[in-house]
Amino acid sequence: MTRADYRAFRIIPTRWMDNDAYGHVNNVVYYSWFDTAVNAWLIEQGLLDIQNGNPIGLVVETGCRYHRSVAFPERVEAHLRIAKLGTSSVRWEVGLFTAGHDGPAAEGHFVHVYVDRVTRRPSPLPDAWRQALMPLVVAQDGAAP
Amino acid sequence: MTRADYRAFRIIPTRWMDNDAYGHVNNVVYYSWFDTAVNAWLIEQGLLDIQNGNPIGLVVETGCRYHRSVAFPERVEAHLRIAKLGTSSVRWEVGLFTAGHDGPAAEGHFVHVYVDRVTRRPSPLPDAWRQALMPLVVAQDGAAP
Amino acid sequence: MTRADYRAFRIIPTRWMDNDAYGHVNNVVYYSWFDTAVNAWLIEQGLLDIQNGNPIGLVVETGCRYHRSVAFPERVEAHLRIAKLGTSSVRWEVGLFTAGHDGPAAEGHFVHVYVDRVTRRPSPLPDAWRQALMPLVVAQDGAAP
Amino acid sequence: MTRADYRAFRIIPTRWMDNDAYGHVNNVVYYSWFDTAVNAWLIEQGLLDIQNGNPIGLVVETGCRYHRSVAFPERVEAHLRIAKLGTSSVRWEVGLFTAGHDGPAAEGHFVHVYVDRVTRRPSPLPDAWRQALMPLVVAQDGAAP
Repeated sequence: MTRADYRAFRIIPTRWMDNDAYGHVNNVVYYSWFDTAVNAWLIEQGLLDIQNGNPIGLVVETGCRYHRSVAFPERVEAHLRIAKLGTSSVRWEVGLFTAGHDGPAAEGHFVHVYVDRVTRRPSPLPDAWRQALMPLVVAQDGAAP
Repeated sequence: MTRADYRAFRIIPTRWMDNDAYGHVNNVVYYSWFDTAVNAWLIEQGLLDIQNGNPIGLVVETGCRYHRSVAFPERVEAHLRIAKLGTSSVRWEVGLFTAGHDGPAAEGHFVHVYVDRVTRRPSPLPDAWRQALMPLVVAQDGAAP
Repeated sequence: MTRADYRAFRIIPTRWMDNDAYGHVNNVVYYSWFDTAVNAWLIEQGLLDIQNGNPIGLVVETGCRYHRSVAFPERVEAHLRIAKLGTSSVRWEVGLFTAGHDGPAAEGHFVHVYVDRVTRRPSPLPDAWRQALMPLVVAQDGAAP
Repeated sequence: MTRADYRAFRIIPTRWMDNDAYGHVNNVVYYSWFDTAVNAWLIEQGLLDIQNGNPIGLVVETGCRYHRSVAFPERVEAHLRIAKLGTSSVRWEVGLFTAGHDGPAAEGHFVHVYVDRVTRRPSPLPDAWRQALMPLVVAQDGAAP
């Protein structure tokens, strides 16, 4: 995978406390970047409204493979794509890249189910969401569909 | 200050990622323990209800002096007392103790203003709160009032 | 899966800031519990020494499926087992349980590669480690081997 | 205080999990921004080297007053100045600003003692550090000295 295999990205600076006792960013922190990259993208597209909007996205599965360590004060590029756009769920894939490398430092996935804010039951993605998400969808082999 | 200068306490185990690149708990994490100790106490007394209750507590000032480092997997005792019980605000003081030491590893304070959940304007502490908080109040010199 | 499918456990209290804007523990935080449960177990067995010991464990892959939300101030039981004990790597599986439920709130895995502290290259698990880890190993179908 | 009362700044984007159950950034997180802004500045000036350098900075006191809430996905400007440049300690002051406001969302301080990496005893600031830090020093009344 390279940056070209993804469809959008966001710069995320590391923070001092991201580093753990071994002097590199703790494995847990990578997930906070996935969460941030996906939700920020949704908010900036005018789709997600944390306080009042409907639907909201709940996370049902996540995973990450770590290829290379990252350390404060590096900046991370979180690159996004969608591997599966379901009726009410989306499988996001996130590649974390750092300066000077073609390959990702880590590759993660993040499955969001979009639910009604009050009932917290899955609700079909609104058309506006589906249209905004479509350009991020890639075929399983990494090529655009 | 020793444990006897406080009025209630809570055990808080450290977590792996609390440690930072220098191999001890990062200064930021101590504040998460203050927050946890104070809010857990309020919840367990039946006062605070995060989801639905009224009032809720917002933080307007915090501070901490660090005397001795703490490291995972140590367990911390967060000891609580109230230095000032105002109409709608409370100055909590928290001493963080670890096994084998009389003196605190750190001493912090935490000023909560209790506000209406919706308007987020200060509201006088309900009587039930005031009665529950009274036993934690100490005089400025550390003696019970 | 129930608690009986695991071989060791650790109590982990939630913290106030574990909750996110939707009022339950953020998906990221679960991974800090995996890290904590595994490393604390290794330390308490006298195997891992964060500051000076050899080997140390680096994380190469993690994952989690979320079944039920958890919220502060709940306490979590992190139950551990080992699904694969390799030459220098271990696949840990962690079930997170809460009071009143037989099934886990979340199930995760956590692949540690044990490396030399200085070179950070994989090193075969010492015999003392292997012997201590054996009782946690389960067969792939969840039964003890 | 306004941005003009400070001497350097750094942009810090918020992260999804910075928000707590009340829908704004948790009070604890502000301290991670202080730590990040100060240490990143020291690293970028070629002064601090986390892995190998000498001295390193340990935190002995911190504090924060919160004036206005901040929420993901806002970006924060962490503005820095030095209120006291001692022999081996520095009192950093940090103002956190957000778009559209002249006044800070929060004002904090952060006292670093610079210590020998191995002995962890205070060591006088090297000349190179002192010269680099001087331009950030303000007089107590907020005016440049």
